[in-house]
Amino acid sequence: MKPIRFGLVGGGAGAFIGGVHRHAARLDGQFELVCGALSRDPERALQSGRDLGLAPSRSYASAEAMFAGEKALPADQRMQCVVIATPNRSHLPIARGALAAGFHVFSDKPATATLAECRELAKAVAASGLCYAVTHPYTGYPMIREARERVARGELGRITKVLVEYTQGWLATPIEREGNKQAAWRLDPEQAGASCCMGDIGVHAFNLAEFVSGLTVRELAAELRSVVPGRVLDDDGTALLRFDGGVAGVLVASQICTGEENNLRLRIVGEKASLDWQQMEPNTLWLRHAAAPAQMLRTGAPGTGAAAAAAMRLPSGHPEGFIEAFGNLYREFAQVLRGGAAADSARANVQGIDAALRGMAFIQATVDSSAAGATWCKLSA
Amino acid sequence: MKPIRFGLVGGGAGAFIGGVHRHAARLDGQFELVCGALSRDPERALQSGRDLGLAPSRSYASAEAMFAGEKALPADQRMQCVVIATPNRSHLPIARGALAAGFHVFSDKPATATLAECRELAKAVAASGLCYAVTHPYTGYPMIREARERVARGELGRITKVLVEYTQGWLATPIEREGNKQAAWRLDPEQAGASCCMGDIGVHAFNLAEFVSGLTVRELAAELRSVVPGRVLDDDGTALLRFDGGVAGVLVASQICTGEENNLRLRIVGEKASLDWQQMEPNTLWLRHAAAPAQMLRTGAPGTGAAAAAAMRLPSGHPEGFIEAFGNLYREFAQVLRGGAAADSARANVQGIDAALRGMAFIQATVDSSAAGATWCKLSA
Amino acid sequence: MKPIRFGLVGGGAGAFIGGVHRHAARLDGQFELVCGALSRDPERALQSGRDLGLAPSRSYASAEAMFAGEKALPADQRMQCVVIATPNRSHLPIARGALAAGFHVFSDKPATATLAECRELAKAVAASGLCYAVTHPYTGYPMIREARERVARGELGRITKVLVEYTQGWLATPIEREGNKQAAWRLDPEQAGASCCMGDIGVHAFNLAEFVSGLTVRELAAELRSVVPGRVLDDDGTALLRFDGGVAGVLVASQICTGEENNLRLRIVGEKASLDWQQMEPNTLWLRHAAAPAQMLRTGAPGTGAAAAAAMRLPSGHPEGFIEAFGNLYREFAQVLRGGAAADSARANVQGIDAALRGMAFIQATVDSSAAGATWCKLSA
Amino acid sequence: MKPIRFGLVGGGAGAFIGGVHRHAARLDGQFELVCGALSRDPERALQSGRDLGLAPSRSYASAEAMFAGEKALPADQRMQCVVIATPNRSHLPIARGALAAGFHVFSDKPATATLAECRELAKAVAASGLCYAVTHPYTGYPMIREARERVARGELGRITKVLVEYTQGWLATPIEREGNKQAAWRLDPEQAGASCCMGDIGVHAFNLAEFVSGLTVRELAAELRSVVPGRVLDDDGTALLRFDGGVAGVLVASQICTGEENNLRLRIVGEKASLDWQQMEPNTLWLRHAAAPAQMLRTGAPGTGAAAAAAMRLPSGHPEGFIEAFGNLYREFAQVLRGGAAADSARANVQGIDAALRGMAFIQATVDSSAAGATWCKLSA
Repeated sequence: MKPIRFGLVGGGAGAFIGGVHRHAARLDGQFELVCGALSRDPERALQSGRDLGLAPSRSYASAEAMFAGEKALPADQRMQCVVIATPNRSHLPIARGALAAGFHVFSDKPATATLAECRELAKAVAASGLCYAVTHPYTGYPMIREARERVARGELGRITKVLVEYTQGWLATPIEREGNKQAAWRLDPEQAGASCCMGDIGVHAFNLAEFVSGLTVRELAAELRSVVPGRVLDDDGTALLRFDGGVAGVLVASQICTGEENNLRLRIVGEKASLDWQQMEPNTLWLRHAAAPAQMLRTGAPGTGAAAAAAMRLPSGHPEGFIEAFGNLYREFAQVLRGGAAADSARANVQGIDAALRGMAFIQATVDSSAAGATWCKLSA
Repeated sequence: MKPIRFGLVGGGAGAFIGGVHRHAARLDGQFELVCGALSRDPERALQSGRDLGLAPSRSYASAEAMFAGEKALPADQRMQCVVIATPNRSHLPIARGALAAGFHVFSDKPATATLAECRELAKAVAASGLCYAVTHPYTGYPMIREARERVARGELGRITKVLVEYTQGWLATPIEREGNKQAAWRLDPEQAGASCCMGDIGVHAFNLAEFVSGLTVRELAAELRSVVPGRVLDDDGTALLRFDGGVAGVLVASQICTGEENNLRLRIVGEKASLDWQQMEPNTLWLRHAAAPAQMLRTGAPGTGAAAAAAMRLPSGHPEGFIEAFGNLYREFAQVLRGGAAADSARANVQGIDAALRGMAFIQATVDSSAAGATWCKLSA
Repeated sequence: MKPIRFGLVGGGAGAFIGGVHRHAARLDGQFELVCGALSRDPERALQSGRDLGLAPSRSYASAEAMFAGEKALPADQRMQCVVIATPNRSHLPIARGALAAGFHVFSDKPATATLAECRELAKAVAASGLCYAVTHPYTGYPMIREARERVARGELGRITKVLVEYTQGWLATPIEREGNKQAAWRLDPEQAGASCCMGDIGVHAFNLAEFVSGLTVRELAAELRSVVPGRVLDDDGTALLRFDGGVAGVLVASQICTGEENNLRLRIVGEKASLDWQQMEPNTLWLRHAAAPAQMLRTGAPGTGAAAAAAMRLPSGHPEGFIEAFGNLYREFAQVLRGGAAADSARANVQGIDAALRGMAFIQATVDSSAAGATWCKLSA
Repeated sequence: MKPIRFGLVGGGAGAFIGGVHRHAARLDGQFELVCGALSRDPERALQSGRDLGLAPSRSYASAEAMFAGEKALPADQRMQCVVIATPNRSHLPIARGALAAGFHVFSDKPATATLAECRELAKAVAASGLCYAVTHPYTGYPMIREARERVARGELGRITKVLVEYTQGWLATPIEREGNKQAAWRLDPEQAGASCCMGDIGVHAFNLAEFVSGLTVRELAAELRSVVPGRVLDDDGTALLRFDGGVAGVLVASQICTGEENNLRLRIVGEKASLDWQQMEPNTLWLRHAAAPAQMLRTGAPGTGAAAAAAMRLPSGHPEGFIEAFGNLYREFAQVLRGGAAADSARANVQGIDAALRGMAFIQATVDSSAAGATWCKLSA
């Protein structure tokens, strides 16, 4: 099978997520980078394109130029989908432009800068008939798939509690004023939207909790804070969650937990058993039983099922990491784009426009609730 | 030095906490059990007394009888202090009776069944001039002392966040209706007071957070739940905390986390470093730095200080457990009772009537806040 | 039941193991310290006796004086057993003296300074009709009992490999020349015997491996080293083991592993499952299966059996430590001394003169094998 | 830069290591698979080639055919290097053929089936002037590079002990007789050579110990066993090692440790500090100090140095796994092939013919020593 041709917006030299996209896209040979609008700085865009081996003619100065330029190419050469790896504020115009020009969209989260924008995007997606997905790479880990599968087949019994936390320490000091660009745009409402912490990492935690539990958050009460003086947007927050059927949850997100790396953890409690997973040791999934010893499930080891097997590449004991998880998102998006039988099962894992909307509704609700003193707000996606 | 003579109320055969008290009291040879009112069932009280080697004449049918009987003995024989290991509701009458009869009091938490009762108790303590302490054994671990000492000397910098959680699974099913007495009284408002989960374990988490951080919780917003159908009292809850100076915290307490044993964890985040401690691996304390690798501090190992050293009995690598931590409370209470120089430093660790009041104020505030839909309530001890 | 009266030889102020003995003896109230020969320095012996509340008349200047003095007391006052907590070289004369005077013996390991001495001791024990035990406290942990029980009932299938290691770092530098008395006597052949590392910790590892596996080491090939220049005795060593029936093992013991605390680990591999236990996290026992996820067994948690239950004092999640494990040895020795039904089951756990002989045979074989260039030597106890 | 064109021998559908090679080669876009002799079964070779998108004309029936076919192509199209992913016995003829035809060689370990073969290969490499490397992917982990760097700059002080173990459980039962091809060839002397366990995994452990410690093993005493009845080759073994300067080591390798996945662990003890690393949690490196708390170094986190930085692709807390480590080997081999400044630093990490020879000498010495009853044998590479 020929690789799918894609163009990358953002993600030039020095960008964190752009590099991940390229590694993940390459991993299975399902995608081929054919063009890019890699930086808003034309000089840097061109240099980045050269570094990545792009033909100079396909290293564009802007997303718009890329859409136009590619559209003008023969169908068997032009890109087939656009990968968006830019700050939040530009997601909507780029995605809309891509869809309008007939390209599928694979976008970084959060889908847009605001919930209102996302509703607009949803209309554009629906109108286009094209594929859209938002990247929540943590959903791609084999043991997250294992967890989801076990919840779905009722192994935990009735779910009674969901605990999810995502702690980082990199924003514990005002590095956005010390030249860190990653920090600067995330903490700038003009580029990030209504939230930093919840929009950057809280939404991953939220998405993962819904993805694995199969439950829907109906309302929440949140307190967001700007711990480092001088910040406009939140760098820390907690939300009490109410899922379907009265299940309660707690979501802690923080970027000021000094010394923490990238500590996403999900616990799902059921009447019969509980699950516990931590992203920094992703190949381990704890299953705790009411009346039997806890079990340590491991990627590829006996006892893991079909969903995990479909998301792994190595025998057990050979650690699979973040790029592999992200690669699974690419692989499944490819399956959806190619259609056929594989597309159907892939679709169950791809986070499409509905997940995008829910993520934005979550961010909006945390901001609204916090502004009102941590009162309960409904999530209306 | 002669051991201090004490009498035990509650804690007969089959009681969990009574056995711990006796082991902890014996550990350093500072206390001697001389009498008891070990059960409300006279037959069982007598048998338990025999098992523990009490003289039959000093195995009393009730706390009141014990106070009267002991008072009648010569001063060098009679008990000097009373250890209370009964359900919450009886704490006030027993403690009041003990103080009135001239005996010091060493009481299980929570101090009383309600905050109002605790205020009454505080008056009785003040009027008596005797010593009173409430047992929060988790404060006795060497690495908790280490954590407190490091916070106090500013190693973490300005504290920015406190995360404390205490999860158990033993009440995930309705065992209170299946003959489990420990569960039955804790879930019975007549015996336990206004809360099960917050009164039983939440208050430990709260106490530990204040003990180590040196900060005071000013208000909280809590949601308590009765997850297992048919329960009147809470078996699960979460509280958003606001400490002095705008520091935020989250306290999660749950007794329905299937498969969890006794998982108390405290994290304190500071601008310069963070601490992380888990009760089930109590001899390890993580110190995470902003710009250096995380350090694993260990009981007795290089790098630990005077406070930890004063609370340990073995060279590093020889695990010290819960009984040892509890034994530290006994040892320090003995030092307070004996007076002198050691009493002064011991007093800094003993949880007296003020800590008792704060614990009850915490429980009350969680109940009140939850009843009002998780609104913010002040802690007024 | 009245406590058993014991006298302590060695273990005065500042001694590590003496303090552990006293805490462990006190824990269950089964033993009462009534006399001591606590130090070879008479002044220090007297002061240590005072600190421990001994009557001055029963704080003796030597073990011999203690035997004579106690023998002269009425039977219901005199000590019933002697606890030996002195350097190895004095074990034989003290134990022999105690037995000759009619006292049971509870001795630190290794039983004697040499295998020849131990054979002499074995004759004295047999002739006396009294009880003798050697303290290997690691055998007292609940999860070691669990491990042994599971091996015994065949859960692992045929055993195929035994890995045991015991690493410490405290002798990584020549502290014996810098005033550390614990190090000085252990590294002095006059006081320690033929080996430091194997005699001090290797023998614990060996004992534990045989205790849990139920197998007997038939021969070994060892290499001992003195890593720190200037030492006569070994501070590091490895032995290849051959157990009954061709099962192979590896024993690593080292006191020069910089930064290690007291890291005893035992792994037993069977055709159907494997066990893994580490002393520094003693309440956890890993059970790894051929075709199912690994299970984490925990002291007191569901899935643990009768042997562990008999060796614990707390509900699960309340860590039990080294003193508790050591306390189990005291408790079981008390049961043996008291006789009756409990004595029979206790005897299966008490390490008597046969285990003492095997320990000495192990030490001797490692020394002999190493001297001969790591050739194979039979263990002949 | 254009990708380097390579051909793959072995590694068709169903082969473990072939898939890893392809993922690792793709990860950084430095290599392009242009041809293959993917299976000895022509039908399967063709099908595998189709699956991988090879032109049918470049999907060859044998390595020899591939060398001839590629040589006939224009220089800018023909492959530049050969990746060997076949059973050991065929390594020498394939490598020799490739070198003779002018292709660089990137070969699975062990380099050949016997030490004698490897010496022959070394001559062929020298004569060819081409690049040869053997793949020890565990050397590619960032924290292994960190460890090596710290050892090299003397942070551990004088090295005093090396402990390395590699335990797996997949050969605990006779799966080679139940259709498992991976097991079958590894246990067949005709295909594997003189050793299964030492040749398959022991050699990785050996290589890693020398790579990180910078020390050379001079002699060893080993015991190899065939634990599962009916096997000709070893499935388990232990070697006592003597490094330069009297440093001792222990190497444990086993494929019958039931329930173990792929547990490679390396500990290096120095007078000042010790290192501890485990492959299944590869982004963590423990540094234990003599007189300070242990530090947990983490890929990408503060405190890690230039060598680790050069081997990673993500910010800290985003796990990098086995494919990434393997990818580093590809990246560095590409740098060597391309020459220039980067080649010089890459060469320090690439395991060339000298490492290949040492690996074979290690395997041979373990076999010889074991056959002679675990006597000491010199490693003569």
